[in-house]
Amino acid sequence: MNDVAVALGYRFAGVHCGIKAQPDRADLALIVSDRPATAAGAFTRNRVAAAPVLLCRERLPTPDARGVVVCSGNATACTGRRGLEDARRMADVAAAAVGGRGEDFLVCSTGVIGRPLPMPRVEDGIRAAARALVPGEDGLFGAAAAILTTDTRTKVSSRTLRVREGTVTVTGMAKGAAMIGPNMATMLAFVLTDAPAVPSHLAELAVQAASRTFNCISVEGHTSTNDSLILLANGAGPAVEPGEREVFDRAIVEVSGDLARAIVADAEGAAHRITVEVVGLRTEDEARRVAEAVANSPLVKTAVFGADPNWGRVVSAAGYAGVAFEETDLSMSMGEYLLYRRGVPLAFDANAVSAYLKQNRDVRLRLEFRLGTAEVTFWTSDLTYDYVRLNADYTT
Amino acid sequence: MNDVAVALGYRFAGVHCGIKAQPDRADLALIVSDRPATAAGAFTRNRVAAAPVLLCRERLPTPDARGVVVCSGNATACTGRRGLEDARRMADVAAAAVGGRGEDFLVCSTGVIGRPLPMPRVEDGIRAAARALVPGEDGLFGAAAAILTTDTRTKVSSRTLRVREGTVTVTGMAKGAAMIGPNMATMLAFVLTDAPAVPSHLAELAVQAASRTFNCISVEGHTSTNDSLILLANGAGPAVEPGEREVFDRAIVEVSGDLARAIVADAEGAAHRITVEVVGLRTEDEARRVAEAVANSPLVKTAVFGADPNWGRVVSAAGYAGVAFEETDLSMSMGEYLLYRRGVPLAFDANAVSAYLKQNRDVRLRLEFRLGTAEVTFWTSDLTYDYVRLNADYTT
Repeated sequence: MNDVAVALGYRFAGVHCGIKAQPDRADLALIVSDRPATAAGAFTRNRVAAAPVLLCRERLPTPDARGVVVCSGNATACTGRRGLEDARRMADVAAAAVGGRGEDFLVCSTGVIGRPLPMPRVEDGIRAAARALVPGEDGLFGAAAAILTTDTRTKVSSRTLRVREGTVTVTGMAKGAAMIGPNMATMLAFVLTDAPAVPSHLAELAVQAASRTFNCISVEGHTSTNDSLILLANGAGPAVEPGEREVFDRAIVEVSGDLARAIVADAEGAAHRITVEVVGLRTEDEARRVAEAVANSPLVKTAVFGADPNWGRVVSAAGYAGVAFEETDLSMSMGEYLLYRRGVPLAFDANAVSAYLKQNRDVRLRLEFRLGTAEVTFWTSDLTYDYVRLNADYTT
Repeated sequence: MNDVAVALGYRFAGVHCGIKAQPDRADLALIVSDRPATAAGAFTRNRVAAAPVLLCRERLPTPDARGVVVCSGNATACTGRRGLEDARRMADVAAAAVGGRGEDFLVCSTGVIGRPLPMPRVEDGIRAAARALVPGEDGLFGAAAAILTTDTRTKVSSRTLRVREGTVTVTGMAKGAAMIGPNMATMLAFVLTDAPAVPSHLAELAVQAASRTFNCISVEGHTSTNDSLILLANGAGPAVEPGEREVFDRAIVEVSGDLARAIVADAEGAAHRITVEVVGLRTEDEARRVAEAVANSPLVKTAVFGADPNWGRVVSAAGYAGVAFEETDLSMSMGEYLLYRRGVPLAFDANAVSAYLKQNRDVRLRLEFRLGTAEVTFWTSDLTYDYVRLNADYTT
């Protein structure tokens, strides 16, 4: 089990209620703050957003959040008015079981699109979860397992920081696996702290953390209907003073970054995690567009899977990113191997580069422009037989 | 052998010169017009364009084209100044061998990026091809085979039309296979007619044909460095009168459409050809963006491969296309099966839809909005194990 610090004043549970067919797989998680917590979030930019996303958008930011209900195995997206009624009902049932008002509970979901939830089972599941709530690592890992779909590993991360009044803990959990497009991914992430925070600060932090972490990962570029990052700050621990805020903000972004990279490392069927570094463009937006084009190219991804040092695919993906440059502005390397310099291909040992791709699960593609100082780091996975197998036979 | 009509006044050849390793695979094609032909083209929008594309852009449109040299197996992209010198040299060698001026020859290439051409062999190949030129079907199929890379079939199409002064023929050949993104594809297409045409007319037709056909196909959304559509009109046949021009233009677009669909049907590793119909949006650009998002989603493509009626992936891909709509504006069907109507999922027989996907090589996804009258039809292929296999091990 990872060594993870758990923020104070939270309790967690993960139970099986019957959304997933396998009786041994938890499919409902509950995260509860023992006191009203400030909450904020960042959500998918997909026009087709699942009902729980609509509900969370309506309720956040808030200074009064009491908890989050998460169901996994069913996205509750594209379920019309009924989906929204079900989401409200889940919040109300959680409030009745845990205490508090329905509007102070948030709801998230992930899984297959377009199927109604088995609500009687879900309601029973929420009540069972409320009875099973525990603090600390046991609780955290139980909930972190219950939010997974095709993930193969739970994803948690934490930071503790000394502040003048004591120790603040930031704890995160996430699920990912597939339909990971930037903006954001089929991902759910919950980052909790026992520091207090005002809603406006937390809302700003949610946007900042998402843009630097979850919006810099992609598996196949398909932006999901359900992506949600929710931050909770309950004040069970000491306050963060203005001079300590930068360190605190960084801890939130770092935990988010750990979770984002863990999502890519555990992408469906992935054999490699690919870090795409783009430097030297005029704006961060330009750098992001190039990084996204490279990260989402199935030809780049299959080349990495096959340990094929086919740098032409990388350079040509940069070429269709919609960013103006001349070939002589661009250099490209794989790991330590510079393969293309200012528009000219270099002689290189193909066996050595292939061995680099073969022997490392973590590989690096670097595109260096000389047009400015903006840069972006993006993470993606390769495209493998297993990706096709897992996704060709998902719902049936 | 297909039954194809060949435009008058053209000769063709396909030879093996040594770009491809296999001695039995032709890798150099020559298309020659016996008289000066009007020529125009449409090319990749990739910023990283191969040297032959730069050369063609510089030379087209022209009323004086004499021929096209095509090498397959080497893209000659990203080869710096040398690539451009080689392209000019190929045109010059063709002119010396066939007759005419170097600047009246065009050059195209397709294959691996970033490797210099074996020029002595290519020059010998051009001379051998010039000696082997023949008109008619034999010539056409020889050249059509020589432009292929990982294609499994030659792709030709034709139309003949009666005009007042006789019969006009439009003949096309293309290669595709992979790195097929819209705008355009790693595709080369040559559409020849024996009607005369003025350069401005042909240039307009090239743009029109590309936008309705080759820019409406995608295999994996990776826009290549080499995409080229070249139209030649040599006037060896009768003139097209102003009142007949619409029919003539349509024949050019139809031949281009046949070739575009043949490219998708023969996409690397494809098991299905997917037609994505998008109707009822405010503008054609909106319809195209939705169609592209659906056609390029690996999750949609793997679902079709796996005969999984996972319509949620289709609807959610529409959602991230960057087009404003509400779920209640959208209905979606697979083949004859309406699965989602105005934002509400419908009950359907999953086995029947799965059987539809399983039993048909050609399948249809239709997204119907109610926001306007613009529509687009887009063609793509599914994502299979064979796609991964073919692309994971391409250059090594």
